[in-house]
Amino acid sequence: MPPDAEFAASLGQGMHGFVRELFPLCRSITGDGLRQTLRVIADRIPLQLHEVASGTPVLDWVVPPEWHIRGARIETLAGDPVVDFADCNLHVVSYSTPVDAVVSREELAAHVHTLPDQPDLVPYRTGYYAERWGFCLAHRVWESMRDPQYRVRIESTLVPGSLTYGELAIAGREPAEVLLSIHCCHPSLANDNLSGIVVATELARHLLVSDNRLSYRFLFIPATIGSLTWLAQHEDILPRIAHGLVLSCVGDAGPFHYKQSRRGDAAIDRVVAHVLAHRGQDYRILPFSPFGYDERQYCSPAYDLPIGCFMRSPNGTFSQYHTSADNLGFVTAAALEESLDVLVDVTRLLERNRIFERVDGRGEPQLGRRGLYRAISGEKDQTSAQLALLWLLNQADGSRSLLDIAERAGMPFDTIATAADAALQANLIRRTLDGDPQWQTHQSFSTRR
Amino acid sequence: MPPDAEFAASLGQGMHGFVRELFPLCRSITGDGLRQTLRVIADRIPLQLHEVASGTPVLDWVVPPEWHIRGARIETLAGDPVVDFADCNLHVVSYSTPVDAVVSREELAAHVHTLPDQPDLVPYRTGYYAERWGFCLAHRVWESMRDPQYRVRIESTLVPGSLTYGELAIAGREPAEVLLSIHCCHPSLANDNLSGIVVATELARHLLVSDNRLSYRFLFIPATIGSLTWLAQHEDILPRIAHGLVLSCVGDAGPFHYKQSRRGDAAIDRVVAHVLAHRGQDYRILPFSPFGYDERQYCSPAYDLPIGCFMRSPNGTFSQYHTSADNLGFVTAAALEESLDVLVDVTRLLERNRIFERVDGRGEPQLGRRGLYRAISGEKDQTSAQLALLWLLNQADGSRSLLDIAERAGMPFDTIATAADAALQANLIRRTLDGDPQWQTHQSFSTRR
Amino acid sequence: MPPDAEFAASLGQGMHGFVRELFPLCRSITGDGLRQTLRVIADRIPLQLHEVASGTPVLDWVVPPEWHIRGARIETLAGDPVVDFADCNLHVVSYSTPVDAVVSREELAAHVHTLPDQPDLVPYRTGYYAERWGFCLAHRVWESMRDPQYRVRIESTLVPGSLTYGELAIAGREPAEVLLSIHCCHPSLANDNLSGIVVATELARHLLVSDNRLSYRFLFIPATIGSLTWLAQHEDILPRIAHGLVLSCVGDAGPFHYKQSRRGDAAIDRVVAHVLAHRGQDYRILPFSPFGYDERQYCSPAYDLPIGCFMRSPNGTFSQYHTSADNLGFVTAAALEESLDVLVDVTRLLERNRIFERVDGRGEPQLGRRGLYRAISGEKDQTSAQLALLWLLNQADGSRSLLDIAERAGMPFDTIATAADAALQANLIRRTLDGDPQWQTHQSFSTRR
Repeated sequence: MPPDAEFAASLGQGMHGFVRELFPLCRSITGDGLRQTLRVIADRIPLQLHEVASGTPVLDWVVPPEWHIRGARIETLAGDPVVDFADCNLHVVSYSTPVDAVVSREELAAHVHTLPDQPDLVPYRTGYYAERWGFCLAHRVWESMRDPQYRVRIESTLVPGSLTYGELAIAGREPAEVLLSIHCCHPSLANDNLSGIVVATELARHLLVSDNRLSYRFLFIPATIGSLTWLAQHEDILPRIAHGLVLSCVGDAGPFHYKQSRRGDAAIDRVVAHVLAHRGQDYRILPFSPFGYDERQYCSPAYDLPIGCFMRSPNGTFSQYHTSADNLGFVTAAALEESLDVLVDVTRLLERNRIFERVDGRGEPQLGRRGLYRAISGEKDQTSAQLALLWLLNQADGSRSLLDIAERAGMPFDTIATAADAALQANLIRRTLDGDPQWQTHQSFSTRR
Repeated sequence: MPPDAEFAASLGQGMHGFVRELFPLCRSITGDGLRQTLRVIADRIPLQLHEVASGTPVLDWVVPPEWHIRGARIETLAGDPVVDFADCNLHVVSYSTPVDAVVSREELAAHVHTLPDQPDLVPYRTGYYAERWGFCLAHRVWESMRDPQYRVRIESTLVPGSLTYGELAIAGREPAEVLLSIHCCHPSLANDNLSGIVVATELARHLLVSDNRLSYRFLFIPATIGSLTWLAQHEDILPRIAHGLVLSCVGDAGPFHYKQSRRGDAAIDRVVAHVLAHRGQDYRILPFSPFGYDERQYCSPAYDLPIGCFMRSPNGTFSQYHTSADNLGFVTAAALEESLDVLVDVTRLLERNRIFERVDGRGEPQLGRRGLYRAISGEKDQTSAQLALLWLLNQADGSRSLLDIAERAGMPFDTIATAADAALQANLIRRTLDGDPQWQTHQSFSTRR
Repeated sequence: MPPDAEFAASLGQGMHGFVRELFPLCRSITGDGLRQTLRVIADRIPLQLHEVASGTPVLDWVVPPEWHIRGARIETLAGDPVVDFADCNLHVVSYSTPVDAVVSREELAAHVHTLPDQPDLVPYRTGYYAERWGFCLAHRVWESMRDPQYRVRIESTLVPGSLTYGELAIAGREPAEVLLSIHCCHPSLANDNLSGIVVATELARHLLVSDNRLSYRFLFIPATIGSLTWLAQHEDILPRIAHGLVLSCVGDAGPFHYKQSRRGDAAIDRVVAHVLAHRGQDYRILPFSPFGYDERQYCSPAYDLPIGCFMRSPNGTFSQYHTSADNLGFVTAAALEESLDVLVDVTRLLERNRIFERVDGRGEPQLGRRGLYRAISGEKDQTSAQLALLWLLNQADGSRSLLDIAERAGMPFDTIATAADAALQANLIRRTLDGDPQWQTHQSFSTRR
């Protein structure tokens, strides 16, 4: 195994180990499971934890009370456990109110969620604002329950407390920011939650030791209410957000999927598409839709941020989605590694993607006397480095980014960026002050509310 | 038969009856046939009849003298009738000058129109500004005419009078108008003329008893000179015309055809295309061309009105076109019904197609507490009503009409419009004052002349 | 043979004769071969020859010393010639420095260029700024050379002198110019050089005796340094250049290729595409790329002129390219003729392509009373002249050129242009003063440098 591959493999294994570590915690949109998850992440990166009190208004919403759960069971009247939260934290509908009662099987049915088509799996259900209680169980178990009555017990509390989220800002040489948003509110689900957390943590570690032009902001948040809370409290930051990604489901073996931002033609949309197109693997670009993860909030009409969603198998499209089968066996070290690799490539492209203009744009410069052109001419074939340099020098007019040029040339971004390095070195191009694509977004935050 | 279908069928039969009633009248671009036709329409809807005197200049044209015809024959010298206007009013070229003469077969040939490829059919020909006389007859009849001489007689008059047209304006709550234009100048042709008249009459009856946001204007006019006359005399109204349709050939069994306005991307172009696309029947969208019906005038460069042409089989594409085979058997009650149904859908879409913006566009609103979202979440599938509401709330930013949103969502307009009704009710969206797509056209009437 | 075809054939034969006349001259980017070539052209058209002194700075370059060559050989030590410039002027790398030495076969190898895949052909190589010497020979010859040492001799001089180019400006009624640029620096290569020269000369002869609306400027120049020199010294002319073509490789039997200007949507791009599309022959449109001929300079970012490249087989795509097989047999009289024919059509279209507007754009004009419409109406079919007139009258709104209208109508340009002539005659349209497409380019020359 070459050293790089070995390093990547060890990264992948490390990430999978991190998934295993986080898996047992019972996360929700508030509470100790979430808080503990963020603390474990903070052991690896300098994450700042923020607490926002229950009852705080955030846009059209209110931060809910904190939910804690100690245990939950369905028992026969003889006291034999039939369903036990201790076995699987999906068994209880998230935010269930406490209950301790003997109920008929009919009454119980109204509180039970199963998957008749996947009778061995436990579904994942939530009822954050429902003020109800409920159990999730395998349909086969439900069918085997023939007693006329059962005892149900949920030892939960819903009390004023706070919503917790983690934030890590990595300052670059320029204020323009890349936002990375990861939801952390799902209990024992490996792909839909933990894969995003561990890949983002590793990406942050990579960026923390890099010399970055752009600034990066990682948000580890409960879905929906977490992003709403952050958005409500940080509107001053929004004009700086030049690009962003929501990360989710990046640990399974499926091909990469990128869901475009609401704009559809933001730089991030083109950057991710370019990176995926040049990997030579199967992938798919999905148009924006207002369902899914926190891009729903970032791309709401008054914000309309240039933020897409990066996934392998998209939410809702794989049979394990929101079931007990989204477990440790469903995510692999290799898939986590590969996802990290794409994201590193994306940030590398964002870092290098600038607008240049020729110092004197009249005619081609004489490359030969600068050692940038072969001495003897006339052959049919030229190297791709040579062609890339000619493309760069022809297209660098202060209006096109290096990615624009790469796409027009039909070449990988890196080839064009390398040509730009050589041309910059030779003083043939210069950076434009006012035309940086990182800043194209700054007018976008309208105050329409 | 369900009541709706029964009602529609009776409508269809009623319309076909109306075609039968109008069929025998000998219409032309002026004269009593036209006037009588408009009066029969006025028995059903409160049509206003206007008379514009012969000799009135209208744009580049002049209103012609009135043409009247009492009879016309080709006879043998023995007095046997060979061709008689009394049998079929297509036999005389419209606007033929009077004649009473014995002519050689050769001389007659220069005044005879036949269809050698359809030897049993009588063609329809006009010579409004030709100051000539002519007969149209079946080619087989012409071939059987072997006498060296015939007597020809046309009892017509061309005298100062007036051009007649009918107008019905139905005021809506808003001044923006939908123009519906129907030509009424063809004699006994059922599809190319009468089908448009009867479907438009029924559509007007429907709109007269509806609560309309938009205003509607029906023009029952002789082709070309009628629309030119109306345009010349109503330039003050043109800035209010937000949408329009020319109706023709809507009674045959062919698939629907919509010919776009000169602009090609006017709201009416997209509305008709959307309605046709969601009917699940075969249809075709044709690009604008400057041949056909009165869209030629409405879409002339200085007017460039957003007016398309709605047809089943387009003019010139069916073998019965402009022949005696375009008769009562060629149009059916079912086809008339279906055409009416499409047009009612088009007006319904126009009525409901508005631009909204979120009252506060930041993040998603909390739908749950408004009863607009299911209490327990986590399932893969959502109802289309739920998805439509999310699309609406994400896209309603004051720049997109409901049709824009429906097209982006890939959903039928009605599903999005229903979501908009719910969101408006819940005070989540509001109407924008200045961005109504009905009014996008108002700058369009240039004064270039 | 009809007279036109006969005339064309004699033109083709004349052009092929001219290729044969120019073939033996040893051209380079400076020197007597180039100068003599231009003088022969000047015998046919009133070409002005310009001399620009060696050492003159031109943009990022400097005019090189003049290169002269009297002879060159590789001999055995016994004095037997192995390779002789007298046999083929491709044998010496252009701009080789003088040499007279005995060298080992290994030393010689570093100065020898062959084509192992085409072992019988002599390649064409240049080293204008390399200050080296070199020989080009058939690979088979090189393989047969087994002596340990050879004597090499190149009798060349590199001395201060001047760069020569030829220019012919043909003034039209309007100042807008069409630039035609032809490189003249290749030695005995028939298609890649001479075909362009002879076709351009013939095109110039045609334009010299035509009544031209546009002005035309022919540049017969050494590639790269020639266009750079002209550009550097004529920046005042650039704002007048409305269209342009680089001509090369127009004598072989391949299908036509048009490489678009850097803009990709310049009028010239659409004009050439239209002409080729309506010839009914195979052809291809290539996107701009910054490799090839002098379009590299004309389309550099600060100039960005609307200049494309017209070819039959493009440079680098045919096996004879830059070898001794690009000889007199590779170009044919018929191919030269056809290329000229396309170029004449292109200039004819440029000449006739204007923007008109209706004198009064309201409704259709009454064509009948102007004799522009048939008297009796009603037939399905109309002549294409009639349809073209209707298209013209509908689209002429001061914003569309005749080519725009032809493309929208799907008709050949000439049909629309003929309709425009009739409409102009009838005073139905007029020319717009400020909207001429010839002038759309005038803002394009930015002073970014």
